[in-house]
Amino acid sequence: MTKSDALHELSTLLGQRLSTSKFELEAHGRSESYFPLTLPDGVAFPTSTEEVSEIVRICARHGLPVIGWGAGTSLEGHALAHQGGVVVDFRNMAAILDVHAEDMTVTVQPGITREALNEELRATGLFFPVDPGANATLGGMASTRASGTTAVRYGTMRDNVMALEVVLADGRVIRTGSHARKSAAGFDLTALMIGAEGTLGLITELTLKLQGQPESVGAAVCAFDSISDAVETVIETIQFGLPMARIEFIDADTAAAVNAYSGSKLPECPHLLVEFHGSETALAEQAEVFGGILAEHGGKGFDWATAPEDRKALWHARHHAYWAILNSRPGCRAVVTDMCVPISRLAQAVEATRADIAASGIKGPILGHVGDGNFHAILMIDDDNPAELQIAKDLADRMARRALSYGGTVTGEHGVGYGKLDYMALEHGGGWDVMASIKQALDPQNIMNPGKVVRVEG
Amino acid sequence: MTKSDALHELSTLLGQRLSTSKFELEAHGRSESYFPLTLPDGVAFPTSTEEVSEIVRICARHGLPVIGWGAGTSLEGHALAHQGGVVVDFRNMAAILDVHAEDMTVTVQPGITREALNEELRATGLFFPVDPGANATLGGMASTRASGTTAVRYGTMRDNVMALEVVLADGRVIRTGSHARKSAAGFDLTALMIGAEGTLGLITELTLKLQGQPESVGAAVCAFDSISDAVETVIETIQFGLPMARIEFIDADTAAAVNAYSGSKLPECPHLLVEFHGSETALAEQAEVFGGILAEHGGKGFDWATAPEDRKALWHARHHAYWAILNSRPGCRAVVTDMCVPISRLAQAVEATRADIAASGIKGPILGHVGDGNFHAILMIDDDNPAELQIAKDLADRMARRALSYGGTVTGEHGVGYGKLDYMALEHGGGWDVMASIKQALDPQNIMNPGKVVRVEG
Repeated sequence: MTKSDALHELSTLLGQRLSTSKFELEAHGRSESYFPLTLPDGVAFPTSTEEVSEIVRICARHGLPVIGWGAGTSLEGHALAHQGGVVVDFRNMAAILDVHAEDMTVTVQPGITREALNEELRATGLFFPVDPGANATLGGMASTRASGTTAVRYGTMRDNVMALEVVLADGRVIRTGSHARKSAAGFDLTALMIGAEGTLGLITELTLKLQGQPESVGAAVCAFDSISDAVETVIETIQFGLPMARIEFIDADTAAAVNAYSGSKLPECPHLLVEFHGSETALAEQAEVFGGILAEHGGKGFDWATAPEDRKALWHARHHAYWAILNSRPGCRAVVTDMCVPISRLAQAVEATRADIAASGIKGPILGHVGDGNFHAILMIDDDNPAELQIAKDLADRMARRALSYGGTVTGEHGVGYGKLDYMALEHGGGWDVMASIKQALDPQNIMNPGKVVRVEG
Repeated sequence: MTKSDALHELSTLLGQRLSTSKFELEAHGRSESYFPLTLPDGVAFPTSTEEVSEIVRICARHGLPVIGWGAGTSLEGHALAHQGGVVVDFRNMAAILDVHAEDMTVTVQPGITREALNEELRATGLFFPVDPGANATLGGMASTRASGTTAVRYGTMRDNVMALEVVLADGRVIRTGSHARKSAAGFDLTALMIGAEGTLGLITELTLKLQGQPESVGAAVCAFDSISDAVETVIETIQFGLPMARIEFIDADTAAAVNAYSGSKLPECPHLLVEFHGSETALAEQAEVFGGILAEHGGKGFDWATAPEDRKALWHARHHAYWAILNSRPGCRAVVTDMCVPISRLAQAVEATRADIAASGIKGPILGHVGDGNFHAILMIDDDNPAELQIAKDLADRMARRALSYGGTVTGEHGVGYGKLDYMALEHGGGWDVMASIKQALDPQNIMNPGKVVRVEG
């Protein structure tokens, strides 16, 4: 049988670093989401690009699917082996290869996590800004075009990756981009690979743009009487052009969950969490402008935290809001939505979503990166209650369609994976066929993370 | 004959808006560069996406090449019909379709020029920042991934286009991207089309990010004793993280040419031309920091111009430097190079280039967007002297290879076209084959601007 032949060849190549143990298959059969357990046929732990290339060559010879795996934090089932195959776990390829401090760039392997990278960079005075809530790997973040709380200032992975090394579906290894800060030399293969979710190749090296650690940082929490007051504050702030480093929204339910989980004492109402980066003068100026906008919309308790430990506590609480919400209903799982709309439609979008959830019979706190027009509802469901899952899916479906009706996108940052596949035709129309043509050109056997992002015959 | 059949069908579709007159063929047979006159078979002037689609369908049926045309300002022969065919001139598709001021975006047709767009936007308080020297069209700028003097602050076309409408090689019309500020929904077709130089399709509509007109603007001209002093100032400024809106280098020869052409009185030595955007407080703070860096490198005459007419004169002179240089040797043409290197290699790259030109026997002033590591040599040649053309080509060849040896790119912003084709294998290795695979998947007949960017069998 060809599958066992493939696993045998992989085992010869990798020895103990090819696992078919129940433990590893299960550990790579589930991610941070509601999707059921889906076991791969094997899990490979390569240590070099050459090994990744050889793994893909073996799988290509036998027609076995190859699925990349970072930290397993994806929310749309990106890394689940729906058609079986070999999961390639990059945990042994997590090194920093080269810090080019003078160019403010760094070259890393895909398995390093964002927190580990920033820990290593601390002494250089530089940092990598993109921060999805989870401590994801850089390879996974690039593959899903991740963003997070700082995208409003520093952009998403699309804006912060300069160059890649990629193993293609036939095992060829290519390099995309360059170490120059811009280039007009042909098709933008770097951008094509970012967000391709491993369907066009496996990323084995990344060169990232870094930022100088800001001279001063100020953060604040502001409470509002209503969601619309908070959202209107965001819209005006963005339209004013204030260079916010972060501007995050949490609703009353999220505030309550965060209090219970992190021991904070936020009033149970909508909040904005903001951060400013810059010189002390710039910070003071920005805070004054923001304070003015805030006051017009009844924002309260503009509580300024420049002490690093206060800020750390604030963003720790924000980054753990997802787990705080899950924790608010023991044993629940979540369907997490990811609408992103033009900023002019943000108030409308949040209000309509809020009302829809309120009428649904399940709980769904809302929070998000509202400076980008991006917000999430964490729809909490009892895993054993199919009716609740259906309610959540119906809500998520209406949210996705609402995002499109506003000129937005069904996924601002989580990606397509398996969960958003059904909306691709709706969002992209004929463009989705073009994606399929590209997929077929680069992976004619459809072995690279098959069944995700695009749908191809075969 | 199939070509005349195609032209007949196009003429039936477009009437007088299909021209085969000698005047129009010649006007579309030459651009801003040294390439010889290359006549297309016809020039089409569509007025709608539907017409563009129909033009492409007719050409596809007859296997006739289709080449987009904006303002004819490209420097690498992008829009020359080397294999004959129909040039599609977008001059009649130059409208602003929709200003979304609250979202800071605008939707335009491809034939509008950047100056016309900014003129129309003036009353909104918004502007589109990307500014190649020439008054290019937005369609052309997107197709070549153009940038210019403000990319150091606002990015290139890659960073400033949110969504496109594109007519594909079989006449299908697709939309890419969305009006949300970010998305993780599948392959980044917008990025793929930007810089594809019309080889994957013709852009018929663009949605662009706009910027708020800055509260205050300050500009300055600073003179240096040596190129390395000027370049070291740039490197330190960028590494400091100062948010320069512009930081442009011109060498002594360029200063002399600009003086002769624009009546300015710059000392004939290397200069930096800089601009700051922000609040008055921020400007003052930035100017102080920049002044300090400058002083360390012997920069002189940090002459601060906040009066709009002074700044206008300064950037007018900078944007016309190319013509000033051409004018310094009547009747000459130019080979313009476009190295872009990591900022840490900039001083080395400029010095080596300077020395190489000095030894060559022809003149070649250097200027560029040094904040991005990007600079140009304007190699002046007598059109009737093949020896000079050869010297220029040899110099340009060494510069391209030098850029690559420094981890940079052979083209920072001008694109590949026909002129840089021979370096693509060198710059991209196996990645160039991937580009060819994508091209073949989306344009199997190879009718969209054939012979540019990629090389395919056929």
